[in-house]
Formats: sequence, structure tokens, C-alpha cells
Amino acid sequence: MSYFDAASAAPLHPVARQALQASLDEGWADPARLYREGRRARLLLDAAREAAAEAVGCRPDELVFTPSGTRAVHSGIAGVLAGRRRVGRHLIVSAVEHSSVLHAAEAFEADGGTVTRVPVSRAGAVTPETYGEALRPDTALACLQSANHEVGTVQPVTEVAAVCRAAGVPLLVDAAQSLGWGPAQGDWSVLTASAHKWGGPSGVGLLVVRKGVRFAPRGPVDERESGRAAGFENIPAIVAAAASLRAVRAEAAAEAVRLRELTERIRARVPELVPDVEVVGDPVRRLPGIVTFSCLYVDGEALLHELDHAGFSVSSGSSCTSSTLTPSHVLKAMGVLSEGNVRVSLPTATPAEEVDRFLSVLPGVVAGVRKKLGAPSVRTAAHEDALVVDALGKRCPIPVIELAKVIGDVPVGALVRVLSDDEAARLDIPAWCEMRGQEYVGEEPAPRGAAYVVRRLS
Amino acid sequence: MSYFDAASAAPLHPVARQALQASLDEGWADPARLYREGRRARLLLDAAREAAAEAVGCRPDELVFTPSGTRAVHSGIAGVLAGRRRVGRHLIVSAVEHSSVLHAAEAFEADGGTVTRVPVSRAGAVTPETYGEALRPDTALACLQSANHEVGTVQPVTEVAAVCRAAGVPLLVDAAQSLGWGPAQGDWSVLTASAHKWGGPSGVGLLVVRKGVRFAPRGPVDERESGRAAGFENIPAIVAAAASLRAVRAEAAAEAVRLRELTERIRARVPELVPDVEVVGDPVRRLPGIVTFSCLYVDGEALLHELDHAGFSVSSGSSCTSSTLTPSHVLKAMGVLSEGNVRVSLPTATPAEEVDRFLSVLPGVVAGVRKKLGAPSVRTAAHEDALVVDALGKRCPIPVIELAKVIGDVPVGALVRVLSDDEAARLDIPAWCEMRGQEYVGEEPAPRGAAYVVRRLS
Repeated sequence: MSYFDAASAAPLHPVARQALQASLDEGWADPARLYREGRRARLLLDAAREAAAEAVGCRPDELVFTPSGTRAVHSGIAGVLAGRRRVGRHLIVSAVEHSSVLHAAEAFEADGGTVTRVPVSRAGAVTPETYGEALRPDTALACLQSANHEVGTVQPVTEVAAVCRAAGVPLLVDAAQSLGWGPAQGDWSVLTASAHKWGGPSGVGLLVVRKGVRFAPRGPVDERESGRAAGFENIPAIVAAAASLRAVRAEAAAEAVRLRELTERIRARVPELVPDVEVVGDPVRRLPGIVTFSCLYVDGEALLHELDHAGFSVSSGSSCTSSTLTPSHVLKAMGVLSEGNVRVSLPTATPAEEVDRFLSVLPGVVAGVRKKLGAPSVRTAAHEDALVVDALGKRCPIPVIELAKVIGDVPVGALVRVLSDDEAARLDIPAWCEMRGQEYVGEEPAPRGAAYVVRRLS
Repeated sequence: MSYFDAASAAPLHPVARQALQASLDEGWADPARLYREGRRARLLLDAAREAAAEAVGCRPDELVFTPSGTRAVHSGIAGVLAGRRRVGRHLIVSAVEHSSVLHAAEAFEADGGTVTRVPVSRAGAVTPETYGEALRPDTALACLQSANHEVGTVQPVTEVAAVCRAAGVPLLVDAAQSLGWGPAQGDWSVLTASAHKWGGPSGVGLLVVRKGVRFAPRGPVDERESGRAAGFENIPAIVAAAASLRAVRAEAAAEAVRLRELTERIRARVPELVPDVEVVGDPVRRLPGIVTFSCLYVDGEALLHELDHAGFSVSSGSSCTSSTLTPSHVLKAMGVLSEGNVRVSLPTATPAEEVDRFLSVLPGVVAGVRKKLGAPSVRTAAHEDALVVDALGKRCPIPVIELAKVIGDVPVGALVRVLSDDEAARLDIPAWCEMRGQEYVGEEPAPRGAAYVVRRLS
């Protein structure tokens, strides 16, 4: 039973549990009241704010607690956009932000704003130059995650913050994945984070707005949390969040070294153990605990199911997992393979033996899924000078499997056209070409779906 | 040590604590994930939703969990207003709603909407007729609390819901104060509630939207809670909320009888024990655990401080308590005395002895505060045919004390003018007249503040 999905939610840290239980008795009353139960609650809230601010590296009066990281992002973005409305209505985000940032950007667009989505490298990183190019005189806000939640790539926050600062544009840093490891670097203006990512309880986010940043809270407000997060404060959870942040920080330096070694082991061994695998994300500038790879010719949902059966809980950015039918926007923006995608994100204190067991189990699981997908029937027909693979109505990873099976049937230099109406094909066929040393010629319109044209090079 | 402020926040119910602790181990993972930890979390969330829906009297798919009652109110009002935007932009609320409803109404006004605030009787209740008169062809939504949070008066929700239904207007019922006692009555369309009011943990609200009600969530959304409450679900707290709602309901019938007897004791005894007191709120149609009274010639903050010192935690709608400088909008709308206001709201299981001790302590505390306020210097001057009391710059309850001291100095039928720039005087001088059988003639403009004109009748 190995839980390898800490980037979604980390199990409760023992310190968080202790703090939560201890403060259930002291922290349930209204901290705005003057009687003793209220004063006790207020003391706990103030102490938690001090501790969280110290860990973030900000003043306590710059930090408010929100009901989740998502709410911190939504409120933070909306508040700066409203506060700087007179500057203009342009927002910059990276293409690989967390969905909460992208949802806020979509809501802003629906409300008449303009959004620039900064592209990333194949490793998942933005560059300060592309942020610099995206800046406009009417830019109200730029957003950049401290590190990516799906592939672990660390972003150049210090450099991007400097570019934004020079242009007088505030930078909001979504530090959800990194705050447990250390404070966000650089001269940022707004910061958001989420306690359950570092082993704190659910129900607590952080929103930090530096003094001097124009900020106008949106929607109905009340007197709580400086008017930036309406509703009764969840003090026991806030206390637990602050206490566990302090605790994980105390362990961070040693644990980062240990987890980095474990994820490095996965990065190195998986391509040796499993054929046709692409490890994605920056190999060096990355979070300690996250490693992500994609397996050709594998159905992501089947893979997750088999890994779960073998006792491993991981997540996937493949299109055919859970309720989503499109591949992860992160993998898409990176232009890497999404099929058979697996993200391993290790919680702190993961024993090395669990990683070794994962490495011993994975090859058989992948081989089993590939075998089950078997050799689907292929209908091919001559079409001008090219072979046509009709994969219409077939879902990821079938179109790529069909392509792989016929590429050897055409002479070097000839074309294969894959007809597919699966959204994932648009990402996975070019990625397959890159991995296999074939040429991706491009996409052609077709009566249904699209035709993806590939030239055999080898 | 008696905590008598359950209407602000109830102490954690033992069942809530047990459920919270038990689900910390099972409920921390992402319920959207397909691996075993995710499936366990999903099971807990589904079971909690079923239990809460049963207690509310709705379908599970009509109920979502929000991060607080306030967020439920904000999202519920904004969602219906947006969903019914084509009908019109008119909103009806009662004048005595919780501040979260009034804040949402203010935000709607700032956004160009129109709001009608329905007045209440001196007992704090609306009438179905006034709601009927407020309805317009462009009314998108009406809101009414199930019972008032400051004075305990139960509202005629069934009748108001019928009036609204006949006009095709949805009614949102804020059931925060009553849901622990029983389901909201009548044919409402939207319901909101808050777990920490019934002994559940902080951080959980309920938003119920009946099938068929047009609802368009506002702002950025995600896939959680049917797109109506963004952000990672706080499942341990949700489980504890649902479990404690079930538990308090099981005790509700017996506890209601017991607490009603205790609050009736306070209602009856306080005017006997303390001179110059007005008990406010409906004497019959009221919540079991809330009783509110106001003491003439008393500073609310001093009274709370002394009661805290004597071991009683209560709240006050007086103007001079805590950070607020205006009297409670509820007392204002009722037109009752706000000075020396005390709300006693008993948690379930409050022992009768604590109430008796409160009754034995209160007279001395009130007398002590009155004595401390002493006999402030009064400057009086002839002004036409009337005595003028200059209470400019003096805060509640001094203006009323000054008035009371001089009323006997003028002949029956003559006038006293009280000059005051304290907002509370506008409420408290008419309320004093009503209590003392004097005539409140009206308010006249004055160079500073206003002149409140009183005719001596007895």
C-alpha cells in the first residue's frame, strides 16, 4: 500500500493532527468576540498567522487564511485585477499553471479581460524573456507557479519577478507545490498556497498580498481576515496548517536530499526497465518528490487501475483517466507524450523500499496493459501515395498503436495518414514521432476528426 | 465558566469530534482520484451528503458543501441572481437577515441591482403580506432567514414561501440558526446553513438548490461539488458536520423543551430582577435557546466585560461593543432599545444551574455598571419653550441617561431636546420613550448631530 500522489494531497502530518486535536478545544469560538473563548481563539489565530508569515517570509498583516488554495488563487487574482483595473485589463499566466489559475483567467476573459498564456519549453519551464515579451502597458497582473504540479519543473520565479518588477507589474506566485520545501524566491507581489499539499489539513489556503499592491476584494466581503476572505475562520485547521508548515520545514533540507535520490532512481531506472517510455519534466531544476513519465501504447486509466491493484496510488495526465477526455493541459503545453502518463509524487518519509517495489512491479504492469490492448484490427487503404490508418472512433492509445504497427509497411520517405477523432492524438502522434525519430508532417482537415501525417524516416 | 453564545458558534459536539478524528485517516485524499485512498474519501463524502440531505429534506444531488455558511449564502444568492438575470435584477431581503445576506445584497446593488429590504415588527418578524407587496415582475430572488440570530424570532417561512411560489419567485432560506432543531418548513427553493452553529466543526456550510431552480455559479468554478463550490473538499470536517447534525437532531425534541424552559425563565425573571429592562424578540414564536434583552442606562461593552469577569460569555448588539460603532441592524429594524443589549444563546446541554447563577449575578452586574457611569455633568439651557440637553460628543448610553435625569424637571406637556451625535441615540431615545410612556416627537436637524425631541407625558 504505497501512496505516491502527494502532489494531489499529502497525508496529514503527525504534527498537524496533534495541533488540530489540541485546538479543537480552544479554537472553536468566534475570534471577533471579546469574552474568554473568543480571546483564546484570537490568540491561536494570531499565533498561526505569525508562524505562517515567518515561513512565507512576509509580514503577518500581509497574510490571510482562505478556505483552500483554490480560493486563495481565485481571490488573489480577482483582487489584483480589480485593484489595478485602471491600469488595464490584461493578465499573463503560464500555459502550465494549476487549473485554479486557468479557471480564474477564463472567468476574467468571460468578463471582457484579455489573457496571454505564456508557452513553456519541452521541459515545462517558462523563460523570463517570454514573460517580458508578454508584458504590455495595460498588464494588470502576471501569474507564475513556483513549480509545476504535474511534472515538478521549477520555474524561474526570481527572474520573472524581476522582469515584472521592472515593468511595474505585480507577480502572483502560486507556491502550492513548493512552500513546504522553502519560501518562494524573488521579489513577488502576491503569493498563494494550500495547506493540504504540505501535510496540513484540508480547508486552509494562504493568500499573501505585499504592502503597496493595489488590491480590491471582489464580491461580498465581511470583517474577517482583513476583508479578504469572508466567512467564519476555521481556527483548528489554521493552527494545524501553521504548525505542520513549521514541522515540514524543519525536515525539508534532509528530506529533499532523500526524496530527490528516490525520484532520481525512478527517472534513471524506468527507461531501462520499460521500453518506449518518455520521462518528462526538467531533470535538474525540479521538485524533490515528483517524477513523471509516459508509456507508449498504454491506456492511462488501465495503467492506474493495475497499479492501484498492485498497491500503488499514482495519478495521470492521460486523456482517458477518470472523468476527463482531454489530456492534461500541462503535457499538451510541453508537447510531450500524454498516453500512458504516470505522475509519481512521493510524500515525505516515503521508504526507499516502496520505490524499489514500484520499480520491480512497473515493467510487468505496463507489459500487461500493452498485451491486453493486443493487436486491434486495422483497416488500411491506399490513398494517393500514402497509407491511411482509420482510427476513427478509437480512443487513446489505439491511434498511436495502429500507427506504430504500420510505419514499417511503408518505404522510408513515404507518408502514413492517421485518421482520428480523439483529441489526444493531436498531442501523442507528434510526441511519438519525436520519440521514434520519425517526421511529423502536420495535421490535415478530414470529414471526421483530423488526418495526422507522418513521414517514415528510419 | 458559562458559554452562552451558541448563536455565534457552538462548542464542538462530542459526535463531531469523534467523526472528525476518525475521518482524518480516511478522508484526506482527493475524492476525484480513482485509487483506493481517493475512493475511500469519495465514499465518506457521498455518505455525508446523503446524511445531510436527509436532515435537510432534499435530494443528495441538490446539496453541496461550502467552506462556511457565509460562502453558502454568497454563492447561493449570486448563483440565483445570475441564473435568473433575464427575469430581472430585483432582490428582496428582510431587514433583519444575517450580515452575509446583507453583504451579498450590497454587492448586488454595487453591481447595478435593486434591493428591497422588508421591514419587521417590533418583535422582529416579517409578514407574508409585506413580502407579497415587495414582489415585482423583475424580482429574481427573495431571501428570508428561518429564525433571527440576534433575538431568536422565528419567521413565517412557510407563508412567505407560498407567496413567493405563487409569484414564481424562488425563496432562499438562511436556516443557519434553526437547522439543528429541524428541517426548514415550506416550499423553499434554496437553503443555506452553517455547521458550527449546530456543534459541527468550522469550515463547513451547506448550499441546497432545488431541482428546477435556475442557477448559474459565479466566478471561477472547478469540477468539485457540482461546480458550485470550488476548491478541495474538507472531507473530515464534512463528515463531522453531517454526523453531528444527525446527533443533535436525535436530541432536538427533548433539548428544545428543556432550553425553552430555561430561556423562558430568563425572559420572565430578568425584568423582575433588573429595573429598566426590555426583553426583545417574539415571546412565543422563537428559537428554544435564544433570549435577548436591553438594559437602560448601561454601556454594552462594560456589561459584557463584567459578565465575562463573572464567568459568562454572551454577545451584544449594542453600539459600543467590540469594534463596531453602530447598533445592531436587527435591533434598529425592530425599533427596540439597543443600549445595554445582551443576547444569551444557550448551547445544548447547558445545565439549569448555570442559568440560575446567571440570574443571580446579573442584577449586581447591571447595577455596578450603572453606578460606574455615575451622574455625568449636564449642561442645560433654555431654548424657546424647551429644555435642551447637550450630549454632543457623548456616547451611548450617556444621552439617554441625561434625558432620564432631566425629564422630571420640565412640566408635563413640555419638551426636552437632546442634542446628540451618537448614531445609537436615533434608536435608543425613541425606544426609551416607548418604555417610559413619554412621547417621542421626532428628530430635528442640528448644526452637529441631531436634536431628538421628547414630550413629557407623565
